[in-house]
Amino acid sequence: MPLTGQLFIGRERVATAQSFRAYNPTTATHLEPAFSSAGAAEVERACQLASEAFDQYRALDSETRAKFLETIADRIMALGDELLERGHAESGLPVARLTNERGRTVGQLRLFADELRKGGWQGVRIDPAMPDRKPMPRADLRQRKIPLGPVVVFGASNFPLAFSVAGGDTASALAAGCPVIVKGHSAHPGTSELVASAIVEAVAQCGLHPGVFSLLNGDKRDLGAGLVADPRIKAVGFTGSRGGGTALMKIAQSRPEPIPVYAEMSSINPVLLMPGALAARAEALGKEFVASLTMGAGQFCTNPGLVFALEGPHVETFIASASAALGGSPPQVMLTAGIYDAYQKGVDRLAANKSVKTIARGADAPGKNCGRGALFSVNAKELHPEIMEEVFGASSVLVRCANESELIDALEKIEGQLTATLHVTEEDYALAASIMPTLERKVGRILANGWPTGVEVCHAMVHGGPYPSTSDGRTTSVGTLAIERFLRPVCYQDIPDALLPHVLRRGNQSSLPHRLDGVYKTGA
Amino acid sequence: MPLTGQLFIGRERVATAQSFRAYNPTTATHLEPAFSSAGAAEVERACQLASEAFDQYRALDSETRAKFLETIADRIMALGDELLERGHAESGLPVARLTNERGRTVGQLRLFADELRKGGWQGVRIDPAMPDRKPMPRADLRQRKIPLGPVVVFGASNFPLAFSVAGGDTASALAAGCPVIVKGHSAHPGTSELVASAIVEAVAQCGLHPGVFSLLNGDKRDLGAGLVADPRIKAVGFTGSRGGGTALMKIAQSRPEPIPVYAEMSSINPVLLMPGALAARAEALGKEFVASLTMGAGQFCTNPGLVFALEGPHVETFIASASAALGGSPPQVMLTAGIYDAYQKGVDRLAANKSVKTIARGADAPGKNCGRGALFSVNAKELHPEIMEEVFGASSVLVRCANESELIDALEKIEGQLTATLHVTEEDYALAASIMPTLERKVGRILANGWPTGVEVCHAMVHGGPYPSTSDGRTTSVGTLAIERFLRPVCYQDIPDALLPHVLRRGNQSSLPHRLDGVYKTGA
Repeated sequence: MPLTGQLFIGRERVATAQSFRAYNPTTATHLEPAFSSAGAAEVERACQLASEAFDQYRALDSETRAKFLETIADRIMALGDELLERGHAESGLPVARLTNERGRTVGQLRLFADELRKGGWQGVRIDPAMPDRKPMPRADLRQRKIPLGPVVVFGASNFPLAFSVAGGDTASALAAGCPVIVKGHSAHPGTSELVASAIVEAVAQCGLHPGVFSLLNGDKRDLGAGLVADPRIKAVGFTGSRGGGTALMKIAQSRPEPIPVYAEMSSINPVLLMPGALAARAEALGKEFVASLTMGAGQFCTNPGLVFALEGPHVETFIASASAALGGSPPQVMLTAGIYDAYQKGVDRLAANKSVKTIARGADAPGKNCGRGALFSVNAKELHPEIMEEVFGASSVLVRCANESELIDALEKIEGQLTATLHVTEEDYALAASIMPTLERKVGRILANGWPTGVEVCHAMVHGGPYPSTSDGRTTSVGTLAIERFLRPVCYQDIPDALLPHVLRRGNQSSLPHRLDGVYKTGA
Repeated sequence: MPLTGQLFIGRERVATAQSFRAYNPTTATHLEPAFSSAGAAEVERACQLASEAFDQYRALDSETRAKFLETIADRIMALGDELLERGHAESGLPVARLTNERGRTVGQLRLFADELRKGGWQGVRIDPAMPDRKPMPRADLRQRKIPLGPVVVFGASNFPLAFSVAGGDTASALAAGCPVIVKGHSAHPGTSELVASAIVEAVAQCGLHPGVFSLLNGDKRDLGAGLVADPRIKAVGFTGSRGGGTALMKIAQSRPEPIPVYAEMSSINPVLLMPGALAARAEALGKEFVASLTMGAGQFCTNPGLVFALEGPHVETFIASASAALGGSPPQVMLTAGIYDAYQKGVDRLAANKSVKTIARGADAPGKNCGRGALFSVNAKELHPEIMEEVFGASSVLVRCANESELIDALEKIEGQLTATLHVTEEDYALAASIMPTLERKVGRILANGWPTGVEVCHAMVHGGPYPSTSDGRTTSVGTLAIERFLRPVCYQDIPDALLPHVLRRGNQSSLPHRLDGVYKTGA
C-alpha cells in the first residue's frame, strides 16, 4: 500500500490542511508524499480516544497483551523491504543497519511479550489477614501494579525503528497497559506511517479498543507541547536533545497535575584507558575506539565522546593508531540537515577552543550532509565544562591526565552519563577499584574492555543515568526494567474476591512471582 | 540528659545565635529550652558531611546496615518516658497514642532491617555472557540498585515519631544506603533532639561515618529551601501540606540537577456507603465513621473527609447515628495553634458555603486549641471543587447522590487520593465492581468495610496515590516498597570479579532473590 501521508487517530486515517515533507539527506531533496500535520483538534481526539481505551486495555490479561505485542512484531516484519527502503531514504542510514535495527525492534516487542507472561511486572505482594494479632488484628492487604494511563512517546531521529513508533518506549508502555500516542519524528514520517499501519492492524486483529494507539505527525513544537500538556496524558517517553527534553520536563511539571517525563537526553560516555591496558594494546584500542566512534556516523546516545588517558609512552601509540583509523574512515551521511549543521558547529567550536588541540579528522566529505569524524585532545587541567558538551556525531575529546589525581579530579567534574568504560588489565585493578564508586555515582552502565555503542536489550541492561543523561536516573529506557516506568502500586485492603482483580484473588498467585508476607516466591 | 536545644551536625552538637521555642498547645505556653536555628553555614556543613559519608555508608553490607537500624530502635526505646512526655507536651497528643506511635516507629526500623537481610531490594539481575551467540556474542551483564545519595527528610507535625526524625522516610532512606539530614519540624524540636540523640549514638556504636545523620532545626522556610537546593542532596522526603510540598517540588525541579521529591500532601479519602451496607448497618456505620473521623483530632492524612451515599431510607439513619456520635465526641487539643486556626477557618468556610448544610458538630470546646468535629452535607450536583479541599482535622462532608450516575460522575471529579473506602454487602458487588476501575485510577489504597485511618506497616501497603495526594504516585511512603524511592539501577558489563560489587560477583547470588536470564530465583 502506498504511503498516504495521513495521521492515525485510532484506526482512522486522518488528513489535515497543514503538511510537511520528509527530506532525503543523501540526495538533499524532499520526498513524496506530503504528510499531514496534526493540530489541536487532532491532539484532542487522540487524547480522548486513548483515555476511553485505558480501562479496557489495562484490564486485559497478560497473555492477550503479549499476543498483541507479538502481532505488532509480525506485522512489522511483513512490511518487508519497503520499510527498510523508506527508512534509508529518510535517515541516510544504510539498509544493513536498518535491517539490524528492525531485528532489535521486533526483538524488543517479543521480549516484553515474554516479560508479560513471566508476570513479575505486576508486583504482587500479599500480606494475609491476622485476625488474632494483638493488640490489633491485621487486615488482609494485597498489592499489585497498574499502568499510569495514556502515554505520549516521541520518536527519535537516530533510531527510526527501535526508538520511534514501535520502539522501546512504545513497547514498554503498551506492555504496561498504557495506550500510546506517538508524536512521530518529522525526519521520518513515511517510516512512521508504515510502522503505525502495522500497529493499527495488530490492534484490529487482536480486537482491541482503537484508542490503544495513535500516530500524530507534525514539524512544529506546539504539537509535542500540546500532547504533554493534555490532562489525559499521564507519562511521556522521549529520546533526543537536552533542550528538547528539558522543555518537555518544564511543560510536564507546570501542569495542574505534574506527570513523569522519561527523557533520554545527552551523554558523552567517558572511556578510561588505564596504563596496563594501554601498555598491552594501545594500537588495537585506537582502532576499536574509532570503530565505536564512527559507528552510525557517531549518532548514538552511547557514542564515546570523551577519552581519559594517563600520560605515558603508550598514549602516543593510541593517538597514532586512532588518527590513522579516523583518517581512513569514510564520510557518512548524517540523519538530517539540522543534525549535520549542529555537528559542524560543534566540531568548529571545539577546534576553535584554545585549550583544545585537533588530533585527527575523518576523510574529506564530498557528499551532502556527510559528517567527518573529529578527534581532539585537552590537558585534564583545562577540561572546562564547554569542552564536555555533547557534540552529536563522531566527535571525541582525549583528556590527557598527568597523574592519577588529575584523572580522579576530572572524573568528579563530569555530568551524569549513560555509560563509562574502563580499559584495564589486572595491573590496573587497584586504580580502577578506587574509581568505581565515582563511576557508579555518575553513570547508569559501567563497561570493561568493550565499547559503549551497541546496547543489549535484556533484563540486566540499564540505558539510563543521572541527570542530564536522562531526566530520571531511577530507570532505564532499554531492557525489561523499562516497564516499571509506566506502573504504580495499588493496595487492596480486605477487598472481597468478587471485587479484586483476578491476579490478587485468593489462591491465584501460585504460578506468579510474588511476595507472601515478604517472602519471595517464584511462582514456578 | 536534659535537652540542650542544639543541632546535630554529624555527632557534633552545634549551637547558633538564632533560636526559637516549642509551644505546648494544651497549655498555650512556650516550652524551655530555646532551640538553635540552623542557617546557611549549618546547611553547608551538614550537606558536606553527608556527601563525604555517602560512598562509605553505601558500601556497607546489608547486615551492618540492618544492625544500625535495629540499634536506632533500641536506643529510641531506651529514651523511655522522657520521649513520650516531651512528645505530649509539644504536640498535645495523648501519651497512649505516642506510646503506640513509638511502637510503630521502632517497628518500621526493624522491618527495614529485615528487608535489608532479605536482599531483594538490591534488584540483582544477571544475564550471563553468550560468547557463541550469532550474529553477535552477548556480553556479561549484571544489574543492581544503588542509593541515590544524601536525602533530606522533613519531619511531619502529625507524627512526631513515626514520620519525623527516625520515621518512615528516614528509615527507608537509611536502609537504602542514603545519609539523611532531617529538617526537624518546628513544632516538636525537643522530641526531635531526643530521637536524634538516639540515632547519633547508634552511628557511634556501629562505627559509622558521622555524616550518615544530621538534624537541623529552624522555624523559617529558608532552611528547608536551602537544604533542597543544595547540589549534594539527591532526594527529599516530606509529609505535610500541599502548599509546602509543591513549594519543595518547585525548588527541586529548578536546580541545575533536578531531584525527586516524595511529598505526601493532602487527601480527603472518600468513603462510599453502598445501599446494601447502609441497609444492613447504617447505625453502626455512623458510629464507626465518627470514631475514624475524630481519631487523633482528625489529624491524619487518611482522615475520611468525604462520604458518598446513595439516597435511600437508611441515609437518615446513618446521619442520625453519626450526628449523635459526633455530638458526644469530646474536644481534642490540636497539634499547633496554626493547625487549630486553619481548621477553624476551613470549617467556617464550609459552613458558609451556600451548597453546604451543617449536619452536626462535636461537643463545645472550652480548652485552648481544641478542635470541634464537624459534619456537613451537600448534594452531589453541587459538589464544587472548593468543597473538596482538605480541611486538616475532624471535618467531613457527606455527598448525597440521587442515583448511581450522580455517584459515578462525582467520583470522576475527585482529585488523586491516598485511599478510597467501600462499604458493601454482596448485593452491592455489581455497582462496586463498576466503580473499582475509577477508584484504581484515583487512589493508592482501596479498602472494603473498614476505615482508612490506621495504616499497617507491611509489605503490601501503599501509602501514596496520584497527585495531589502525593507528588509522585509511583511509590509509597509506608511499607517496605518505600525503599525503592531512594535507589536507582546500575548495570555492569563484562566487569571482572575483582571490580564488581560483592553482591554481583560470579556465584554470589545463591542466597539472594534475583533474576537469572530473566528467570525469578528466590535465593532460598
